[in-house]
Amino acid sequence: MTVFDVAVWKDGRVRMLDQRRLPSDEIYHDYVSAAEVAQAIRDMVVRGAPAIGCAAAFGVAVEAFRLAREGLPASWSLAMDPAMRQLRAARPTAVNLAWALDRMQPLLAGEPAGVPERLLAEAEAIHREDIASCRAMGAAGAAILPIPVGGRPLAIMTHCNAGALATAGYGTALGVIRAARDRFGAVRVYATETRPYLQGARLTAWELLHDGFDVTLMTDSMAGHAMSRGLVDVVVVGADRVAANGDVANKIGTYAHAVLAKRHGIPFLVACPLSTIDLNTPTGAQIPIEERSEEEVTHFSGQRVAPHGVRVFNPAFDVTPAELIAALVTEKGVVHSPDAVGIRGLFRS
Amino acid sequence: MTVFDVAVWKDGRVRMLDQRRLPSDEIYHDYVSAAEVAQAIRDMVVRGAPAIGCAAAFGVAVEAFRLAREGLPASWSLAMDPAMRQLRAARPTAVNLAWALDRMQPLLAGEPAGVPERLLAEAEAIHREDIASCRAMGAAGAAILPIPVGGRPLAIMTHCNAGALATAGYGTALGVIRAARDRFGAVRVYATETRPYLQGARLTAWELLHDGFDVTLMTDSMAGHAMSRGLVDVVVVGADRVAANGDVANKIGTYAHAVLAKRHGIPFLVACPLSTIDLNTPTGAQIPIEERSEEEVTHFSGQRVAPHGVRVFNPAFDVTPAELIAALVTEKGVVHSPDAVGIRGLFRS
Repeated sequence: MTVFDVAVWKDGRVRMLDQRRLPSDEIYHDYVSAAEVAQAIRDMVVRGAPAIGCAAAFGVAVEAFRLAREGLPASWSLAMDPAMRQLRAARPTAVNLAWALDRMQPLLAGEPAGVPERLLAEAEAIHREDIASCRAMGAAGAAILPIPVGGRPLAIMTHCNAGALATAGYGTALGVIRAARDRFGAVRVYATETRPYLQGARLTAWELLHDGFDVTLMTDSMAGHAMSRGLVDVVVVGADRVAANGDVANKIGTYAHAVLAKRHGIPFLVACPLSTIDLNTPTGAQIPIEERSEEEVTHFSGQRVAPHGVRVFNPAFDVTPAELIAALVTEKGVVHSPDAVGIRGLFRS
Repeated sequence: MTVFDVAVWKDGRVRMLDQRRLPSDEIYHDYVSAAEVAQAIRDMVVRGAPAIGCAAAFGVAVEAFRLAREGLPASWSLAMDPAMRQLRAARPTAVNLAWALDRMQPLLAGEPAGVPERLLAEAEAIHREDIASCRAMGAAGAAILPIPVGGRPLAIMTHCNAGALATAGYGTALGVIRAARDRFGAVRVYATETRPYLQGARLTAWELLHDGFDVTLMTDSMAGHAMSRGLVDVVVVGADRVAANGDVANKIGTYAHAVLAKRHGIPFLVACPLSTIDLNTPTGAQIPIEERSEEEVTHFSGQRVAPHGVRVFNPAFDVTPAELIAALVTEKGVVHSPDAVGIRGLFRS
């Protein structure tokens, strides 16, 4: 398995691979404050719900070490409050960000001495647990994949990048794909390019080629045609937030793929850790959908492709209703035909 | 109405607007042989089924004048055969190309003197009739649009460019949109960018802004989300070939939009002239789907966005089954819930 330094602790700093520069350049940045980490999250140096959670956790730790160098604060909670808010506001849709910060928060209230070290240990634990959870998810997902027929490898379509690059490592949807290769010997992957940010073309294709996969790239608009021609056996995607009833917010375009998969009788799987499930959000209708800048649509590699004066609609995510999802794959097991009851069950086990 | 020199006769040459350079540059090229015109069609200087038909017809005329300058051939049919083949092979999916050439062909068999002039007159007639047919289509389509409710203008989504730029002028789908504005006073247009070639971003947005429309651009992957949020009242697209049973081949991505429109109870209209309907193709399954070069997907404005070594799937069109189409809008009237019987009826009227 390839491990990329998506968001790691390195020599007292937060090191991140600049995913905006892939696939042409593999460049790392080191961050020394929560403000810098929040900015990097906003600017999509790092992206993918679990990876954002890890980055934010390390952002809390690096900020505490920074403050400690100026002297031990009377109240860590108070001293860290601006940083916690800044990190929490960096991206609105992914729930792992809030989840990771909620996990760090109680450590601020303990014995003031040693807080930075305990925050770092917690961030490292989040990072370690994320890799373990991706591996568990991969195994659980691979076990329920359809057996390939007709002598050709199982053809798995994925959207955006829910890979090692979107997590601490291994990946959620791409974790299932990695485990599928372990199970079947070979798989064929169809990656949608994922406009406007091209996570599929730039990140998924790069990450999977790096690990020797057979990857075919297509535009988002080609998924329906590929399905109608029988090229796709199963769809596996990640999630940015799952509501209590099983509705899934994920990268824009996911919903269309799910509707098309349903029409063609192709199983549509969503792989995500429990930290992505938000029991406080009853349904997809309550998930805030981030709208991003017009330039992501009107420009390409800095070059304008649309005329001046055009309005732009640029939602970063959409909501796929639970009824379109064959199974939710988590580190605690699989929920078939996910609904509120099945999802609550995951948290009891 | 704006008229662009999409494909016209100018001073003994075929003049075409280079649509590959839009929206940044408005550049025209003049062609003096069928080989040049065929190459321009292949390279997508001109695109859009009706516009390709016009360009090919003028290509036949310009070739005849070129040959006539070298002396009157014994047999025009024989002399023009290589040129006719070259033009016919330029793009495989759009049927108007073959339709226009079939209309020119008989003129080669007549009295040898005056053949170039008669070919030119026929090409001009094709061009003139195309504009008239677009206007008739626009009126017929606008008449069946839903009445806007809730105080906001009717919101019409379109895909690719079935506009003045895809025809001799006025447009098919965009002709319906132009006529809709005449009917309702104002409309709101959602244009999908249409990867990989960005006809929506580059051409539809440009053409409609040029005529003062309210245009909102989005990526193809956002159509489902826009529909789920109630932003779209009706979808109108063009066609590259319609089979005898009403199945429609159109720009890749059309099928997904049709499936999504069906799910949301949004009428899905296809506007095209009778010359786009191919009664010799029984169903969509028999329509050849052109696959284009990998670079259209892996590169953007000459810059590579996908990693080396990735495979590419790049079909230029897909097939939307007739069951998803609320109405087929032609210059001879509208066929609701199109099927073989309704379509044959158009040709009898």
